[in-house]
Amino acid sequence: MIIVMQVGATEAQIEAVASFIRDRGFEPLILPGEGRTAIGIPASLNNDQRTNIAANISAMEGVSRVTQTSHPYKLASREYKRENTVIKVKDVEIGGNKFVVMGGPCSVESYDQFEAAAAVVKDSGATILRGGAFKPRTSPYSFQGLAEEGLKIMKEVGDKFGLVTITEAMSGDMVPLVAKYADIIQIGARSMQNFPLLIEAGKSGKPVFLKRGPSAGVDEFLLAAEYVMNQGNHNVMLCERGIMAFDSTYTRNVLDLGIVPVLKEFSHLPVIADPSHGTGVARYVRAMAKAAMVAGADGVMVEMHPNPKEALSDGSQALVPDTFRDLMNDLRGLSGYVGRTV
Amino acid sequence: MIIVMQVGATEAQIEAVASFIRDRGFEPLILPGEGRTAIGIPASLNNDQRTNIAANISAMEGVSRVTQTSHPYKLASREYKRENTVIKVKDVEIGGNKFVVMGGPCSVESYDQFEAAAAVVKDSGATILRGGAFKPRTSPYSFQGLAEEGLKIMKEVGDKFGLVTITEAMSGDMVPLVAKYADIIQIGARSMQNFPLLIEAGKSGKPVFLKRGPSAGVDEFLLAAEYVMNQGNHNVMLCERGIMAFDSTYTRNVLDLGIVPVLKEFSHLPVIADPSHGTGVARYVRAMAKAAMVAGADGVMVEMHPNPKEALSDGSQALVPDTFRDLMNDLRGLSGYVGRTV
Amino acid sequence: MIIVMQVGATEAQIEAVASFIRDRGFEPLILPGEGRTAIGIPASLNNDQRTNIAANISAMEGVSRVTQTSHPYKLASREYKRENTVIKVKDVEIGGNKFVVMGGPCSVESYDQFEAAAAVVKDSGATILRGGAFKPRTSPYSFQGLAEEGLKIMKEVGDKFGLVTITEAMSGDMVPLVAKYADIIQIGARSMQNFPLLIEAGKSGKPVFLKRGPSAGVDEFLLAAEYVMNQGNHNVMLCERGIMAFDSTYTRNVLDLGIVPVLKEFSHLPVIADPSHGTGVARYVRAMAKAAMVAGADGVMVEMHPNPKEALSDGSQALVPDTFRDLMNDLRGLSGYVGRTV
Amino acid sequence: MIIVMQVGATEAQIEAVASFIRDRGFEPLILPGEGRTAIGIPASLNNDQRTNIAANISAMEGVSRVTQTSHPYKLASREYKRENTVIKVKDVEIGGNKFVVMGGPCSVESYDQFEAAAAVVKDSGATILRGGAFKPRTSPYSFQGLAEEGLKIMKEVGDKFGLVTITEAMSGDMVPLVAKYADIIQIGARSMQNFPLLIEAGKSGKPVFLKRGPSAGVDEFLLAAEYVMNQGNHNVMLCERGIMAFDSTYTRNVLDLGIVPVLKEFSHLPVIADPSHGTGVARYVRAMAKAAMVAGADGVMVEMHPNPKEALSDGSQALVPDTFRDLMNDLRGLSGYVGRTV
Repeated sequence: MIIVMQVGATEAQIEAVASFIRDRGFEPLILPGEGRTAIGIPASLNNDQRTNIAANISAMEGVSRVTQTSHPYKLASREYKRENTVIKVKDVEIGGNKFVVMGGPCSVESYDQFEAAAAVVKDSGATILRGGAFKPRTSPYSFQGLAEEGLKIMKEVGDKFGLVTITEAMSGDMVPLVAKYADIIQIGARSMQNFPLLIEAGKSGKPVFLKRGPSAGVDEFLLAAEYVMNQGNHNVMLCERGIMAFDSTYTRNVLDLGIVPVLKEFSHLPVIADPSHGTGVARYVRAMAKAAMVAGADGVMVEMHPNPKEALSDGSQALVPDTFRDLMNDLRGLSGYVGRTV
Repeated sequence: MIIVMQVGATEAQIEAVASFIRDRGFEPLILPGEGRTAIGIPASLNNDQRTNIAANISAMEGVSRVTQTSHPYKLASREYKRENTVIKVKDVEIGGNKFVVMGGPCSVESYDQFEAAAAVVKDSGATILRGGAFKPRTSPYSFQGLAEEGLKIMKEVGDKFGLVTITEAMSGDMVPLVAKYADIIQIGARSMQNFPLLIEAGKSGKPVFLKRGPSAGVDEFLLAAEYVMNQGNHNVMLCERGIMAFDSTYTRNVLDLGIVPVLKEFSHLPVIADPSHGTGVARYVRAMAKAAMVAGADGVMVEMHPNPKEALSDGSQALVPDTFRDLMNDLRGLSGYVGRTV
Repeated sequence: MIIVMQVGATEAQIEAVASFIRDRGFEPLILPGEGRTAIGIPASLNNDQRTNIAANISAMEGVSRVTQTSHPYKLASREYKRENTVIKVKDVEIGGNKFVVMGGPCSVESYDQFEAAAAVVKDSGATILRGGAFKPRTSPYSFQGLAEEGLKIMKEVGDKFGLVTITEAMSGDMVPLVAKYADIIQIGARSMQNFPLLIEAGKSGKPVFLKRGPSAGVDEFLLAAEYVMNQGNHNVMLCERGIMAFDSTYTRNVLDLGIVPVLKEFSHLPVIADPSHGTGVARYVRAMAKAAMVAGADGVMVEMHPNPKEALSDGSQALVPDTFRDLMNDLRGLSGYVGRTV
Repeated sequence: MIIVMQVGATEAQIEAVASFIRDRGFEPLILPGEGRTAIGIPASLNNDQRTNIAANISAMEGVSRVTQTSHPYKLASREYKRENTVIKVKDVEIGGNKFVVMGGPCSVESYDQFEAAAAVVKDSGATILRGGAFKPRTSPYSFQGLAEEGLKIMKEVGDKFGLVTITEAMSGDMVPLVAKYADIIQIGARSMQNFPLLIEAGKSGKPVFLKRGPSAGVDEFLLAAEYVMNQGNHNVMLCERGIMAFDSTYTRNVLDLGIVPVLKEFSHLPVIADPSHGTGVARYVRAMAKAAMVAGADGVMVEMHPNPKEALSDGSQALVPDTFRDLMNDLRGLSGYVGRTV
């Protein structure tokens, strides 16, 4: 940690900071400058010491700025684990050589609708089936999902086609129910910092699919993963799904593919991209799914609906079955280039 | 709702959209243009019809854009209720003539610390005591709050000084416990779209203090309030606490005071500003609290700690007691000018 | 254009808007709703009528919102010209089948440095040589470029290696000088709305390489192109170079690759991506350049320096020569997949 | 400057950085940590050394991050000049005890229109008259201003009423013309980093009114001022005019009043707020102008048009004369509270 003092900070102020550090058992290094003094704390602090010491020192007189010199996450870091994490769910590996595709409708609307979607997923060669049972909708007046009935349909259809299933839990107390039916627990973008949910997802022992919040930075994203991992559950997938756009005339969000190589460098966890929410427009999904593969993602999550114009939610971003099949072919064609299979 | 067709959309595509609308019982108005056709749906749709019809039509061929012409919220709107909502909690009115000040530390750390803070709040003339028992911290390694022990301290201290109390609930299942001890339930910025929590807070019947998410627009913010109100609980306060900054070198967030007159125009709910989180820097809190009053806010929430440099959380933004007292004097001086009392 | 009236707008207010429209020679279509009335102007307005009429009507009483139903740009639009624009500069085509790579250092620092860079560009198979002679630096104390001396070096080196050259003009009066030496005039991101510069670049008749401003939306970007084209110069390239990040801890900007398919759909102009500024970090450039190709870009601009750690500007994002060669090989390998050559 | 090495950086990499620093004449301080080493450069660097050394070291192997410990601006800093800068233009002082109000239309449209506006400005007690002669419009098809004819009208009307005048120059070569007619040269938000313009404005010796770019941070803003000051012209006013909004449904921009106390702390230059562009909506201007005064601004710039619904530009945000007069009365009433006059 580096503390930069204000220009004109007095000797007494500098010494007060130094004492505060010594009182906590560390030896400060004083770097006098022409204009302003900097103070370093060379020893690594525990994670639980860092944040508060920084805030406390910020409140001291004569202090201008406090900068952390190390990352705030630990278990999610590449430093903690050098090799890539590969998560095995039934016979599907996420984060390994095979690029995974998660497909399916925004919401489970009925057995027939979901079965039709699953048939397309299976038949096109994708391995993971998505669909929402509890829908976090911006408006209380929008369709809220079929709830447990939806989970049952998901499980039945998943079993029928031999597909791994993934669906969202919206709160900690919902986790056991979701865990009973689905193979992977999704944490939505709006819930990325729902800490009780993260903790329960961690306790469940099920693989967790964590979506990045629309205005979350890399550190915040990895700290959310850390909440799950801190419960002993290291099977966390990181999903980039688009950040807040300042211009949403043409796309709903901005898919931040640049975070893919960043996450692969600083973390060992699998990285998935969601070009459906990332653009919000079905006709841009294919290009961005391919770009995600080339940027280094381990998989994509793509919305597909048997009949988007009758969808009960998010119809504008869902692919029709034929386009989903085309996308699978695209990815297969491209996979050799990146040294993977699909 | 206005549907704008693509340039070169065919007659058949235009007719398909018109039929889709007629099938749902509305009469479309076709506005032919030189380059492109627009289609209007003049009848007001139910709120639960709007979102999906828009998404469905977006998925139809030849459609370029779908624009809503009415606001998506209802109960929170000024159209639903012309006069200002005044929320009465014990003998404190929020949204009435008296400008309310909510003060106290980020976290309840101990009985002594909280009592010292409450004494300052009371003594300076503020009426509402804040303090976190469950802390939503970005890092799992940071202090997480005293939990129920903190709630008990809050209640005891609040009773002792005759102050109304407010504290955060982080999940729906936590609401009954918080409601048992505190007078007002706070929904944090990170939880603004935690829909199960909003619903439980609505069911509790307790006044709800809803913080705006750091990247939430006005419609999303009011729709979150709508989730609470939809449970029959109309006692919701709206709190602006700073939006995501693209430059956080000098301040942590950007306090969006421009939303104050917007919310007062479009909603009847009380509006509170939080300059502590809005700036993240104690020495800017006073100026921004006063600016909030002048911009039309009904109150402010301000962090104050008996000893910020020993605080277990957020020390850098907490006022010391003397500055809090100065702020109360500032606000009292200014209140006559805006026709209020403090 | 659609005008949405406020709830409770009076008949007189609605009629005033209708009259205002009729006075300008258009026939308004009134769409009464349950809660609020909308008014449509079906005829296409001239571009110079649109903006002001919208602003004027916004200022009328009872008006809630004015929405444009058509795009504000014309010459840059796909509607104006269906087929892709291919810009021919010497023997290089931009926007055609061949994917173009523009490489070179941030600044022309000396003849030797620039020649060394050009040799790598040529030898690796790239066709366009970049380098700044006038540098727009955030600080007045940073290296500002070699000015005309740099232009001369660029021309001499470009001629020697048979490479097309591109460099930035920072103001309108600088355009003739830049046009004298360089083959393509670059408009920097900070200058995207420097209208006198856009107009002069248009008048020069030289191909123009227009960088998107860090907070420019699609409409603003294409309107900037429109300024150039409106002078009769239709040879404009659009360059995505990263938008403003809210988290710049790991990358300098957010490369918005999602805009590539959007621009290809709504405009006929060539689209180039700049992953060097888009990430600001040399080790992420390769992944993002490839992703840009797959997303549909017509080329990339990449910074490369013979010796980045001695660079006078932007050393942290420049590739070393070997990595630039590797990138060219990557792109060549990938090009077949997207049906192009490199 | 602090350089943080990567975890696992080798001794050789650390030594290479240290040597690089020594070669430039500074003595590095090595701070070994448990996980990673940090290296400090205690001596103050010249401003022209800072940026490049940081970029060069960023490009070296084993380096994780480079952090500046001092501000990049100098002449604009409070450290350079402790007391507030007061700019005297004719008999008006900006930055002194009197709060200044700059009023007038977006564009000078005709003598009659401008004279009518000026009469209101004068008569209500404001002292500075604004109006655009050259208009930077997003679209080339919008009204571009009366050019020199507009400047002449401005001067004539300003002289008639004894008002100080301010208008925008859009490029460096336009500065002498603008300086010939107007008292203050405005640099628009889109031109904040038009460096040739900043330099010419600096050379002109005229007071400069510098608007913050919509996505400019504090350092970038003050460095833009530094460009002007570096030419020996220290009469620069800083204007906050709203930053880029992610939700522009209700307001056009976000007026960042929190930057007012930040600028007053770190710089000695006068700070003005522009609530007209900051909100884009006439009916929110009054509240935000008052809030700006209370937040510590030295003045406001407000658009007012004799007849907004006939305005040739920006009619939706212009006040009508009566509201402008009301605002002046508001500010007069409030001025005593902040210890100023109007």
